[in-house]
Amino acid sequence: MDLASLIGLVLAILFVFISISLGDKGVASIGSFLDPASAMITFGGAFAVNLVMSSSIKAFVNGLKSITLILKPVKSNEEDIIKQIIDLSNVARKEGLLALEEAANNSIEDPFVKKGILLIVDGTDPEFVRSILETELSCIEDRHKTNIAFWENLGSMGPAWGMIGTLVGLINMLGNLSDINSVGPNMAVALITTFYGSILANWICIPTSNKLKSNSATEIMSKNIVVEGLLSIQAGENPRIIEEKLKSFISPDRRQAMSANNSEGGGEQA
Amino acid sequence: MDLASLIGLVLAILFVFISISLGDKGVASIGSFLDPASAMITFGGAFAVNLVMSSSIKAFVNGLKSITLILKPVKSNEEDIIKQIIDLSNVARKEGLLALEEAANNSIEDPFVKKGILLIVDGTDPEFVRSILETELSCIEDRHKTNIAFWENLGSMGPAWGMIGTLVGLINMLGNLSDINSVGPNMAVALITTFYGSILANWICIPTSNKLKSNSATEIMSKNIVVEGLLSIQAGENPRIIEEKLKSFISPDRRQAMSANNSEGGGEQA
Amino acid sequence: MDLASLIGLVLAILFVFISISLGDKGVASIGSFLDPASAMITFGGAFAVNLVMSSSIKAFVNGLKSITLILKPVKSNEEDIIKQIIDLSNVARKEGLLALEEAANNSIEDPFVKKGILLIVDGTDPEFVRSILETELSCIEDRHKTNIAFWENLGSMGPAWGMIGTLVGLINMLGNLSDINSVGPNMAVALITTFYGSILANWICIPTSNKLKSNSATEIMSKNIVVEGLLSIQAGENPRIIEEKLKSFISPDRRQAMSANNSEGGGEQA
Amino acid sequence: MDLASLIGLVLAILFVFISISLGDKGVASIGSFLDPASAMITFGGAFAVNLVMSSSIKAFVNGLKSITLILKPVKSNEEDIIKQIIDLSNVARKEGLLALEEAANNSIEDPFVKKGILLIVDGTDPEFVRSILETELSCIEDRHKTNIAFWENLGSMGPAWGMIGTLVGLINMLGNLSDINSVGPNMAVALITTFYGSILANWICIPTSNKLKSNSATEIMSKNIVVEGLLSIQAGENPRIIEEKLKSFISPDRRQAMSANNSEGGGEQA
Amino acid sequence: MDLASLIGLVLAILFVFISISLGDKGVASIGSFLDPASAMITFGGAFAVNLVMSSSIKAFVNGLKSITLILKPVKSNEEDIIKQIIDLSNVARKEGLLALEEAANNSIEDPFVKKGILLIVDGTDPEFVRSILETELSCIEDRHKTNIAFWENLGSMGPAWGMIGTLVGLINMLGNLSDINSVGPNMAVALITTFYGSILANWICIPTSNKLKSNSATEIMSKNIVVEGLLSIQAGENPRIIEEKLKSFISPDRRQAMSANNSEGGGEQA
Repeated sequence: MDLASLIGLVLAILFVFISISLGDKGVASIGSFLDPASAMITFGGAFAVNLVMSSSIKAFVNGLKSITLILKPVKSNEEDIIKQIIDLSNVARKEGLLALEEAANNSIEDPFVKKGILLIVDGTDPEFVRSILETELSCIEDRHKTNIAFWENLGSMGPAWGMIGTLVGLINMLGNLSDINSVGPNMAVALITTFYGSILANWICIPTSNKLKSNSATEIMSKNIVVEGLLSIQAGENPRIIEEKLKSFISPDRRQAMSANNSEGGGEQA
Repeated sequence: MDLASLIGLVLAILFVFISISLGDKGVASIGSFLDPASAMITFGGAFAVNLVMSSSIKAFVNGLKSITLILKPVKSNEEDIIKQIIDLSNVARKEGLLALEEAANNSIEDPFVKKGILLIVDGTDPEFVRSILETELSCIEDRHKTNIAFWENLGSMGPAWGMIGTLVGLINMLGNLSDINSVGPNMAVALITTFYGSILANWICIPTSNKLKSNSATEIMSKNIVVEGLLSIQAGENPRIIEEKLKSFISPDRRQAMSANNSEGGGEQA
Repeated sequence: MDLASLIGLVLAILFVFISISLGDKGVASIGSFLDPASAMITFGGAFAVNLVMSSSIKAFVNGLKSITLILKPVKSNEEDIIKQIIDLSNVARKEGLLALEEAANNSIEDPFVKKGILLIVDGTDPEFVRSILETELSCIEDRHKTNIAFWENLGSMGPAWGMIGTLVGLINMLGNLSDINSVGPNMAVALITTFYGSILANWICIPTSNKLKSNSATEIMSKNIVVEGLLSIQAGENPRIIEEKLKSFISPDRRQAMSANNSEGGGEQA
Repeated sequence: MDLASLIGLVLAILFVFISISLGDKGVASIGSFLDPASAMITFGGAFAVNLVMSSSIKAFVNGLKSITLILKPVKSNEEDIIKQIIDLSNVARKEGLLALEEAANNSIEDPFVKKGILLIVDGTDPEFVRSILETELSCIEDRHKTNIAFWENLGSMGPAWGMIGTLVGLINMLGNLSDINSVGPNMAVALITTFYGSILANWICIPTSNKLKSNSATEIMSKNIVVEGLLSIQAGENPRIIEEKLKSFISPDRRQAMSANNSEGGGEQA
Repeated sequence: MDLASLIGLVLAILFVFISISLGDKGVASIGSFLDPASAMITFGGAFAVNLVMSSSIKAFVNGLKSITLILKPVKSNEEDIIKQIIDLSNVARKEGLLALEEAANNSIEDPFVKKGILLIVDGTDPEFVRSILETELSCIEDRHKTNIAFWENLGSMGPAWGMIGTLVGLINMLGNLSDINSVGPNMAVALITTFYGSILANWICIPTSNKLKSNSATEIMSKNIVVEGLLSIQAGENPRIIEEKLKSFISPDRRQAMSANNSEGGGEQA
C-alpha cells in the first residue's frame, strides 16, 4: 500500500468535510453539499465525454481502474537491479553467456529482464537486442501515457461540466426571479456543480495523473538501467566498469550506501 | 459502430436535458434554453471563423465530416497485422521475395501493406523503402492533424464566441435598465450563449479532437509495425526473430494471448 | 480570392451585427456599441504594444499587411509539382543534367525550383544542394513565423487591453456613484472595451494566425517535394521510382486521381 | 534609437491617460488612479518575488537594465555580413588563409567574427572551430533567454500580485460594510491594483520580452551566417558558392537588392 | 546565504502586511486575515494532494526541504572550473595522464570532477567516459526536476484549493441568507482562502520553482564545462586550445576579466 497517496487522499477530503461543517448549520451543512442532480450533470457529463474520447469501453474501464495504481507502491529499487545485473555479469564472465539462461530461470522474475537475457543467450545481434528492448520500453511508456491522459482529460472535463451545470442553474434561476428569497439558495445549488468539478479535478484527477507520471518515470528509469546493463554484459564489459556505469543512474548518497552494503554482503551475491 | 463514443455522446446530452428539466418549470424549462439568436452568434460565429482558418471550403467540409470518424471503430488488431507479417516472412523465406507478390494480391487488402510489398518485390533499396513508407506515414499523420486541429480550433472558438454573445447581451441590457424586472430574464438570455459555447466545446469538439488523436495514434502504431516488419522481411531476417521484434509493440498480456492462439491455430496460418 | 476566408469573415461580423440589432432598441442598438474612446484604448493600446514588439516600423507594417495573405488562395497543387519534377527527371535521363537548364528557363516560374535546378546544372555537390535548399526552406519558414507571431501577439494583446479599458471604466464609475441611474449605462460602456478586445482576437487575429499557419504548412510541404525530387533527379534515380517517392506526400485518393489523369494526358507532358 | 519601440510605448500609455481623462471628473480622474499603497503591493510584490527568482542581486539588476535593449536598434544587416564574408573568402583564395589575420585586424570589429578568423588562421581543426563557435552561440542564446525570462516572469507576477492586492482590498472592505456609500470608492481602490498589474504586464513586460526574443533571433541568425561562412572559407570553397549559400539566409527580394548593389559597387569591395 | 532570495521573500510579505494594515481598522485588520479554518482547507488541501502526487512520504519531505536550496547561493564560478581544468591539462601534458590521480586527490573536492579524472586515469574508453558522465548529468537534472515539479504542483494546487475553500464558503453563506448584515463579513471570510492560495503560489511556490530551475541550469552548465574539459584532456588536446574551448561557455566580459586575472596570477596556477 502506498501510504503517501492514501494519507494524502484521506486528509484532503477530511479537510473539505471539516471546512463545510464549520458553516452556520454545523455538521448539518454537509447535507446542503449533497445534490444528486448536480452530481449527475458534473460527474455524469465529465465521465460520459471521457467515454467518447476512449478508444473502447474496455479502454475506458482500464483508465478508471488505473487509479488503483496510485495506491500500489512502485518499488524504485534501482540498487537491487544494479546488483542483479552485476551478479549476472559475473556469471557471464566466469561461465559464459549461455550460463545466463540458468541464472535467469532460477533467480529472475521480472519478465523484461528475462526477455533481455534470453535474447542475449540466443546470440541475437546487439543492435537488435537494443532495438527490441527499446521498442518495448517505448510501448510501455505509451501505455502509461494512455492512463495519464485519461485522468488529465477527466481533470479538465470535471470543471468544464461543473461550469455547464452552474450555467444551467443560473439560467433557470434568472429566468424565474419571482421569489427573491429563493435567489440565495438557488445560487448555492448552482455553485455546487462548480464545487463538484473542482473536487473531481483537484482531489482525484490531477493528483492521480501526476502520480502515474512519476510512477511511469520510475519504471522507465529502472528498465533503462536493465537495458544498459544487459547490453554491457553482452559486450563482455568488465563487471567493475558495468557497476560504475549503472551507478551513474542513482544519486551519490544512494551510491555510497550501496557500496557500503555491497562490501558487507557482497560475498553472498557474487 | 464505436459504442463507447455513441453511448458517451448520448449520455452527456441526456444529463444536460435532465438537469435543465429539474428547474422550477420542469420540462418546460427546456424552452428557455432554446434561443435562435444565441445559437446564431455562438455557433454561427465559431463556425464562420473556423471557415476563415480552413485552407478551402472543401477542407472545412472535410473537417466537419471527420466527426463521423469518432463513430467508426478503429480496429487496433495489431495481433492480426503481426500474424500477417509473420506469414509473409515465412512465404519469403521458403519461396523467395518474389513470391510475396502473389501473396499480396491474394490475401492483403490494406493498400499500405500492399505498397510496401510491391516496393520490396521490385527490389527497391531498403533505405529507400523505409524512406518512402515513412514519408507516407508522416503525411498520413499530417492529414490526421488537420482534422484534429479543426475540432480543437472549433473547441476554443465556441466559448470565445459564446462570451462575445454574452457581452452583446449584457451591453444591450445594461444600456437600457428601465424595467428592473427584466434584468433577470435578460441576464438569463445573455448567459445562454456562454452555455452554448461550453456545450459545443465540451460535449462535441474537445471529445472529438481527443478521440481523433487516439485513433490516429492507433493507426500510426499499426503502420509502424508494418514498416518494421516489411523491412525485416526484406532483410531476410528469421521469422521467429521478426515475431519477437513485432511483439515488442504490444503489451505482455496481449502477447501471451497471441502465443496461446498461435499454437492452437498456427498450423493453418504458417 | 480565397472564398473560404472571405465568406467566413463576412458571416462572422454579420452575425455580430444581427445579434446586436436584436436588442430592445433594434438596429439603433448598434449605436451604443460604437464608442471612439473604447476603440482608442483597446485597439490603440493593442496595436501600440505590438509596435513595441516589432523589430522595426517596417516590420510592423509588413505584419499588418500579411492579413491580405489570408485572402490570397495558396494553390496546394502538389500534383502539378510532382508532374513537373517527373518531366524534368525524364529530360535529365534522356538528355543529361545539362539539358535541365533550358527546360528550367523555358517552363519553370517558381524561383525556388529554378534555383535548385541551376545548382544541379552547375554540378554542385548533392550534400551542398540539400544544405542550400534546406537553409532557404527554414528561412522561409522563419519569415512565415514572424507574421504568424504578429497576429498571435495582437490576438492576446486585444483582450488584455480590452480588460485594461474595462478596469479604467469601472474604476472611474465606482469612484463616483452619486447617480445610481448611470451605473447600468456606465457599466455597459466599460464592457465595450472587453467586447472590442474579444472581437479583435476572435474575429481577426486568431483566425488570421491559424490561416497563415496552414498556408505556411502547405507551402513548406510543396517545397519539400521539390527538394526531394530535385535531389533524386541529381542522383539519377529512375523517373518511376521518383514518382513513387513523391506520391507518398499526397493522400491515396489524390494519388489515384493523379494516375488516372496522368494516363490520359501523360503523352503531352512526358 | 529604436523608433518602433519608443513610439509604441509612448502611444500606449498616452491612450491610457486619455481614456482615464474621459471619466466624469475629466483630467482630475487621473488622481484617483494614483494610489501609493496599490503601487506598493503590486509593483513591490512583483519585483520582490522576481528578486527571489534571480540568481543574485546583480542578475536582478541586469534583468532590469535589459529593458534598455528594446530601445537600441539591432542592426539586422545580414547583407553587410554576407559581403564581409565574401570579401574575406576572396582574400583567403588569393592570398591564403594566413592573409585573413591582417584583414581581420584591419577591417573587422565584431569580436565573434574576429575570434572565428583567428581560430582558422591558427589552423584549428574545422570540426573544432564549429564546436567552439556553436558553443559560444548557444551560450549567447542562454544569456538572452535569462533576460527574456526575467520579463516573462515579471509579466506573470504583475497581474498575480495585482490580484492579491485586490483581494486584500475586497476582504478589508467586506469585513467592514457599515458605510454603504463607501462601497463604490473602496471597490474602485481595490481594483486599482488589478489595473496596475495589467499595465505592468501588457504595457511593459510582455512587449519587452517579445522584443528581446525577436532581437535575439536576429542576432543568432546573423551569427549563424558568420559560422557557415567562416567554415566555408576554411574549407576553401569557391566565393561564388559561398555567396549562394549565405544568400539562402535572406529573403528573395533582399537577395535581389543585394545583387543589384553588388554589381554597382562590387568593384570597391572585392 | 543567498541575499537576493532572502530580501525578496521578506520584502514581498512585508508589502502584504503593510497593504493589509492600510485598511480602515489599521494594524488590527491583520486579525481579519488570520483564519485557521481557511488555512486548513487551502494549505491542508494543497499539501495533502501534493503528498498524493509524491512517490513516497520521504520524497514529499525532500520536496519540502528543497525550499532551503533557494537560500543557499549557487557558486557559478565557471572561471574557477576552467582554471582547474587548464591546470589539470598542464599536469597531464607534462607528467602524463597518470599524474592526474595525485592532482585529483590533493586539490579537487567536487566528486563529479574526481570521478571523471579517475575514469580517465583508469584508461577508460573516451566514448565510455562521456557516456558515464552524461548519464550522471542527466540523472542529476532529473533529480532537480523532481524538486522543481514539487513546487510547481504546489503552486497550482494552492489557488485550486483556495477556490474550493471559497466555493464552500459561498455555498454555506448563500444557503443561509437570513441575516443580510452577515453577507459582507461572510464573503470576506470566503475570499480569504483565495487570498491564501494566491499567496502560497505567488509568494512561495512559483518563485521557488523558478529559482530552483535557474540553480539547476547553472549547475548543469558548470558540469558541462567539466565534461568537455576532461574529455579534451583525455584526448591530449593543447591546453591553450582547451582554454579557448571552455571560455566559449562564458560571456565575453567574464572572459576578458579572466584573461586579465590569469596573466597576473597565472604563474602560481600553471
